Amino acid sequence: MTEKNQPELSKLCVHSITTKPWSLTESVEKFQAAGVAGISVWQDAAKAIGLKEAKTLLANSDLDVVSYVRGGFFPHANLEHRQKAIDNNKQLIDEAAEIGAPLLVLVCGAEPKQLLSESRKQIQEGIEAILPYAESNNIKLGIEPLHPMYADTRSAIVNMAQANDMAEKIAHDLVGVVIDVYHLWWDDQLESEIQRCGKHDNIFAFHTCDWNVPTTDMLRDRGLMGEGAIPARQIREWVEAAGFNGCIEVEIFSNHFWSKDQDEYLMQIIEAYKNYA
Amino acid sequence: MTEKNQPELSKLCVHSITTKPWSLTESVEKFQAAGVAGISVWQDAAKAIGLKEAKTLLANSDLDVVSYVRGGFFPHANLEHRQKAIDNNKQLIDEAAEIGAPLLVLVCGAEPKQLLSESRKQIQEGIEAILPYAESNNIKLGIEPLHPMYADTRSAIVNMAQANDMAEKIAHDLVGVVIDVYHLWWDDQLESEIQRCGKHDNIFAFHTCDWNVPTTDMLRDRGLMGEGAIPARQIREWVEAAGFNGCIEVEIFSNHFWSKDQDEYLMQIIEAYKNYA
Repeated sequence: MTEKNQPELSKLCVHSITTKPWSLTESVEKFQAAGVAGISVWQDAAKAIGLKEAKTLLANSDLDVVSYVRGGFFPHANLEHRQKAIDNNKQLIDEAAEIGAPLLVLVCGAEPKQLLSESRKQIQEGIEAILPYAESNNIKLGIEPLHPMYADTRSAIVNMAQANDMAEKIAHDLVGVVIDVYHLWWDDQLESEIQRCGKHDNIFAFHTCDWNVPTTDMLRDRGLMGEGAIPARQIREWVEAAGFNGCIEVEIFSNHFWSKDQDEYLMQIIEAYKNYA
Repeated sequence: MTEKNQPELSKLCVHSITTKPWSLTESVEKFQAAGVAGISVWQDAAKAIGLKEAKTLLANSDLDVVSYVRGGFFPHANLEHRQKAIDNNKQLIDEAAEIGAPLLVLVCGAEPKQLLSESRKQIQEGIEAILPYAESNNIKLGIEPLHPMYADTRSAIVNMAQANDMAEKIAHDLVGVVIDVYHLWWDDQLESEIQRCGKHDNIFAFHTCDWNVPTTDMLRDRGLMGEGAIPARQIREWVEAAGFNGCIEVEIFSNHFWSKDQDEYLMQIIEAYKNYA
């Protein structure tokens, strides 16, 4: 624990999936020892050790539990599947509450058989359907716009403007937006939409990483900050200028990094965070 | 030539790269025999048989030569490379003129070392630099916005709004926009930006295909119309409602289809065109 309380790292959060080869137990130990301030917990990591064990582990650590990842996937061509998605999201709210995460990140979903506008309508209906349950558990819901390359099945919400629109339409303290540089860096409206999001107190979380040049896999080839095309620090500055004061979350899916020594990788994450995030 | 002059196919154009295993000579013969109305010629296909041979081949066919593909790639971190890109585009204008193509499609480029806004500035400078040369050769220049997943190196212009902005700023009869459903289907401003483009007489070309679900390769896994998530016919209707009266160009990069019998594939293209384009 020699590195604990490095002031430079006081806002650094790492997602459990970033160091996927580690169990949640290992991630918690290693992150804490390295001076990382927070963790966002993916469902698979929590379930692999059991939710009760995860709860105890996190409660006994010094790490802030920043979010639980991930709910959403509301749109479907048939009603029965949409209802199942709502039930599943309630379950995820329970899990978030159990492990002590204040925020459930929503990857909102898309149904390729229907128009994106119809999917967005179903997303709004889904969020509104789970909102009373989120309220009674005091769990925030973060709409995460995804890169347009995921518009077929993962998210009909593809930019900040759409996420802002939806959060403002639902207009509830527990509903806001999760900003991820990977999904949004290409958008020339990003700075102004971040400002808008901040004005409505809707910036709930901030995720960072980089876009590899070239990118060899649409899902699992994200880079460390500073390695690619994304001006990650500039986007962080916009988010903080808009009033966000929370953790900077490193969320990297990478077959490359997952194949490496995870202790060394964690040190690389910390260096990249200090220099480029 | 039994299928020639099928009225249903009077607007169907196929890109030479769509049937990449065929030489340009084979493509021209086969397209014409199948009743296809037009062809867009990729540089590699023309150069493989020689530009003079390509010119004669196309002049002697009944196919409309719709466009020459592709110029652009203007942004670079250093000036010398930007000048080389300008020279290269002039060469491409010569080649388009030689084979009788009225339009050079521009994949505008991006430089990951700099902001997208800087790359867009360099794109505009590049187009303005080649415009007198395009004018003297009477070759139109079509700005093609590309999907944001290509924003790192292929195009800093990632939606119709940016393409419209640039075409309207340059404000020249020879500069317009190439609309491709693959790149733009996710954009909720697409219909209104198509209308805007039409009002300025800036719709120079229309490309169609589909987005496979899932997509397994970021470059070479496009689908036939009707196979995936894109409402291709709806977008065509928007384009035609905005005044476009030109060919519907099928542009598909696909390792899958390139590995198949190209005669059968061409029949599939025609069926997909009739039913879904």
